[in-house]
Amino acid sequence: MSILVVGSVAFDDIKTPRGHAPRLLGGSGTYFGLSASFFTPVRVVGVVGDDFTAEDEAVFRNRRIDIRGLERVPGKCFLWACEYESNPNVRHTLRTELNVFEHFSPKLPPEYLDSDYLFLGNIAPQLQCQVRDQMGPRVRLVGGDTMNFWITGMPQEVRRFLARLHVLTINDSEAQLLTGEHNLHKAARAILAMGPQAVVIKRGEHGATLYQHSEYFGVPGYPLEDVFDPTGAGDAFAGGMLGYLAQQGRWDDTTLRRAVVYGSVMGSFACERFGVERLTQISEADVEARYREFVALTRFDA
Amino acid sequence: MSILVVGSVAFDDIKTPRGHAPRLLGGSGTYFGLSASFFTPVRVVGVVGDDFTAEDEAVFRNRRIDIRGLERVPGKCFLWACEYESNPNVRHTLRTELNVFEHFSPKLPPEYLDSDYLFLGNIAPQLQCQVRDQMGPRVRLVGGDTMNFWITGMPQEVRRFLARLHVLTINDSEAQLLTGEHNLHKAARAILAMGPQAVVIKRGEHGATLYQHSEYFGVPGYPLEDVFDPTGAGDAFAGGMLGYLAQQGRWDDTTLRRAVVYGSVMGSFACERFGVERLTQISEADVEARYREFVALTRFDA
Repeated sequence: MSILVVGSVAFDDIKTPRGHAPRLLGGSGTYFGLSASFFTPVRVVGVVGDDFTAEDEAVFRNRRIDIRGLERVPGKCFLWACEYESNPNVRHTLRTELNVFEHFSPKLPPEYLDSDYLFLGNIAPQLQCQVRDQMGPRVRLVGGDTMNFWITGMPQEVRRFLARLHVLTINDSEAQLLTGEHNLHKAARAILAMGPQAVVIKRGEHGATLYQHSEYFGVPGYPLEDVFDPTGAGDAFAGGMLGYLAQQGRWDDTTLRRAVVYGSVMGSFACERFGVERLTQISEADVEARYREFVALTRFDA
Repeated sequence: MSILVVGSVAFDDIKTPRGHAPRLLGGSGTYFGLSASFFTPVRVVGVVGDDFTAEDEAVFRNRRIDIRGLERVPGKCFLWACEYESNPNVRHTLRTELNVFEHFSPKLPPEYLDSDYLFLGNIAPQLQCQVRDQMGPRVRLVGGDTMNFWITGMPQEVRRFLARLHVLTINDSEAQLLTGEHNLHKAARAILAMGPQAVVIKRGEHGATLYQHSEYFGVPGYPLEDVFDPTGAGDAFAGGMLGYLAQQGRWDDTTLRRAVVYGSVMGSFACERFGVERLTQISEADVEARYREFVALTRFDA
């Protein structure tokens, strides 16, 4: 089944101890879309400016991603500038330019309205809710993500967004910020009480944990000795997870657990090069091979 | 097979947001010994002062732990005072009194010399090496632990200790301190190059990871919503892990993986009450039940 994602398609200016990349194609819609495309047909809703080139477009087309919902307007793409310390868990946002995102009002092409799966990527919660409204009751599963900027700045809007989700993916520190609970298990229970039926807490290098009302599942991190650039790993995780659920067309506990592992697979690939580079290099066979690695690195005798 | 542990048998003065316990039986030898006793006969080497009472002794006797190697000298037991913040990962050492540990020179009772398994608990590395020397070549497996105090203060002695270990258990932050590597996978490789054939990095609430030269295994944390008192969780982990290895009498990859899960089981119990209280309440059946919970919370379809 196809999945529709609304999110940012943007440029990132990334400094890490390994170097400086001033113009990388990025954004939540881009990372999610590329990642999900390994599992299911993907449709993107977003907005770009004049600086979005044919070469950028080719990154989507090469993965057969439908970008008819990517609006083009005069001006420049959303830009995010960030610097990572040698500890890649510590990053500093240097600059955020909304640009064409400032007046963005998502419009779904009519041919997108039969999408069964929807992901509300990390943008303003009002925009996320607008897209949810346009999709109507037909949609079978709604996933979403958010971040500290919205949690702090628009707490009521974030609550309204959460009430309309089936599955939330969220960072550990953002789960703590959202709920005021330091303990991540308590934080997850508090989020489940806000609406979602499943919450995945992304713990960076420590892996990820899935919470449902009566189930708990944990998977450790993939042993990456070199984290080249962690930008987009969370969106790639969500793309792997929701893409797999859309492929399977169900989201029982067994399927959700496998989906969290596919999310971990895609998040680990995203960190291996600057920007989306690694996601444009790998094949479906690489994804399956890494899934089997996750099986091997987590198995023990019952 | 029986396991011999050398470590501290001490009193802890613990403040947490849940209350203040000024005199808790604790120490690496105590937590390790209680935990390992669920799997195999345990012999303890250490030193206590006049303030070690018959009631304290009963904690060991009730678990059939052999304390003939627990020397009694005039003076007071080692004392450690610490305060935890509401985030239990943040603690402040308020006071450390070596007391009877200041002039401790470990002496193994002759009847301990046939122990096949040895654990060098967290005390000064010279003392750890002295015990290793006294055990001679018969010992089949040597495990150990250390901490920031020794890594910073006695780096050469810690290196000599590491060169004589088969298995090291160590905290994430201490692995980073020991190796100068932020990335925990690189840190583990660096530690393997110092001597041990297996390293377990304890990641607190995020679980634990096992590294051998050609194997990697990870297990997530147990979902504890209330971490009552994390003191001793690392020693309880080591006791569960090494106790299980001693029970099995082998340490191939399959057995090591199960041992890491038993370590996680015992570490999770240790956090559920103040001090050693929980470890004195549980039964072997509780340990097996929690092991099965770990199976359930980590399984996904291959």
